[in-house]
Amino acid sequence: MPKKHGAKATSAAAIGNAVRVKPGFVLSDVDPRSTPGYAGSKKDSVGAMDASRAEIDDLQERLYAGGRDGDGPSVLLVLQGMDTAGKGGILRHVVGAVDPQGVSIHAFKVPTKEEREHPFLWRIRKQLPPPGNIGVFDRSHYEDVLVVRVHDLVPPKVWRRRYAEINSFEESCNDKGIHLVKVMLHISPQEQRARLAERLDRPDKYWKFNPGDIDEREHWGDYQEAYQAVLDKTSTDENPWHVVPADHKWYARLAVHQLLLDKLRELHAPWPPADFDVAEQQERLAAT
Amino acid sequence: MPKKHGAKATSAAAIGNAVRVKPGFVLSDVDPRSTPGYAGSKKDSVGAMDASRAEIDDLQERLYAGGRDGDGPSVLLVLQGMDTAGKGGILRHVVGAVDPQGVSIHAFKVPTKEEREHPFLWRIRKQLPPPGNIGVFDRSHYEDVLVVRVHDLVPPKVWRRRYAEINSFEESCNDKGIHLVKVMLHISPQEQRARLAERLDRPDKYWKFNPGDIDEREHWGDYQEAYQAVLDKTSTDENPWHVVPADHKWYARLAVHQLLLDKLRELHAPWPPADFDVAEQQERLAAT
Repeated sequence: MPKKHGAKATSAAAIGNAVRVKPGFVLSDVDPRSTPGYAGSKKDSVGAMDASRAEIDDLQERLYAGGRDGDGPSVLLVLQGMDTAGKGGILRHVVGAVDPQGVSIHAFKVPTKEEREHPFLWRIRKQLPPPGNIGVFDRSHYEDVLVVRVHDLVPPKVWRRRYAEINSFEESCNDKGIHLVKVMLHISPQEQRARLAERLDRPDKYWKFNPGDIDEREHWGDYQEAYQAVLDKTSTDENPWHVVPADHKWYARLAVHQLLLDKLRELHAPWPPADFDVAEQQERLAAT
Repeated sequence: MPKKHGAKATSAAAIGNAVRVKPGFVLSDVDPRSTPGYAGSKKDSVGAMDASRAEIDDLQERLYAGGRDGDGPSVLLVLQGMDTAGKGGILRHVVGAVDPQGVSIHAFKVPTKEEREHPFLWRIRKQLPPPGNIGVFDRSHYEDVLVVRVHDLVPPKVWRRRYAEINSFEESCNDKGIHLVKVMLHISPQEQRARLAERLDRPDKYWKFNPGDIDEREHWGDYQEAYQAVLDKTSTDENPWHVVPADHKWYARLAVHQLLLDKLRELHAPWPPADFDVAEQQERLAAT
């Protein structure tokens, strides 16, 4: 690893604003190979992440400490993207850099029979992060207006009302102190083909491959349309979406790292004060 | 960080055997400042952990891949120790180095009313790691023969039969493919005093301090006796205990890292074979 990076690294501070979805946003205008808000190189990005490691550790520990009494804020990172978009890499390299005691990851798979018998938010509510924690959703309630819409798994009148349901659900999360960071990892179909090809080239990657992934490629346009609808209808002032170009894995990792850092800075809290007399306890301890 | 370490680092391979509890083991004979099975320095230990990082990553991913079909093995790291023994540091620095997607950590606190209305293993069973995962228990079912015994929270005839119940419970875990790594972090009362004093000296550590921690120090001898009983009665051939001297945090981290590595090596599995025709899928993909 190069040694010169770190303090000197190009700033990633502008990424958050650059990837935030604003009114009139058009998904197809975003180049999945671009690196919005960041002028540095891949090498710079490693330095930039290393440079804020100590700060993110401190902020995360403050968040965690604040949750100890059961009512502090929490963070919920929602990760969406087409297959191979790099959610796993984000979990490993970005979320994995944070103290695991304060992190809870949940991967939402195809709903079980029990889950399908409940409203679509039922299984989501059960996985919301407790105070002080950083929760991560690897896929989420948005699948219920993405795969479900593309494959007509419920009638249109059902999925159509879900956007509004999602918005009020997310507001109710905010009311509980849950701060969402919503990220769509945006890759190109060409990059997806290359990543799937790699899974088929390497026996240590076979287990990640599913023939159904190729079938899904035929619905690429429908998925982009469904994502556009998500971005149009559920990117609110309180809970905006971030579309992170993800053909460059290094950029996607840096961007999500930065989004998490921005949110933690926003929540920056003082250390919880002592709820005991410090001097008295010091005396008691010395006597043991 | 020094650069010469890594390949050249002193080997940690002998730690596992050195800390394993064998018949006739006497806890009070273990010096909490010792570093059994390891001749290296603190700096060497960092190099030793870095040197096996890629291997542990590979082994953990194989474990995780093997769990995808719902019936592979899993690992369960059980962490016990007196307050301030360093469980949090192990979670952060050892467990935190592993891909968080395949890790599930559960901290067992004072049982809730609902938990107390069930047999003591009820809440434990619910947190067992699924196939492919590394589960970590921060405290565990052993609290039910430690704090419970020391403070007479149930009648002696109840806690006395728990040792045998624990042994058969753990065997039933083995039958399900759950491989336990049981670790007691062993600190001295002097080191605990220093660590508690630090929590009282630093406002960023107040939140970790509880006046009850000082009260518990009066029961130090009782706890050591209760731990000795645990080691006598529940260190079996299949599920042995490891007593890791923990006054030196760096040694404790290296030791638990090594125990985890040893277990993953033991479980080393080939990558799951493709359950599809690779060439056929490559052709299909190329056509998209």
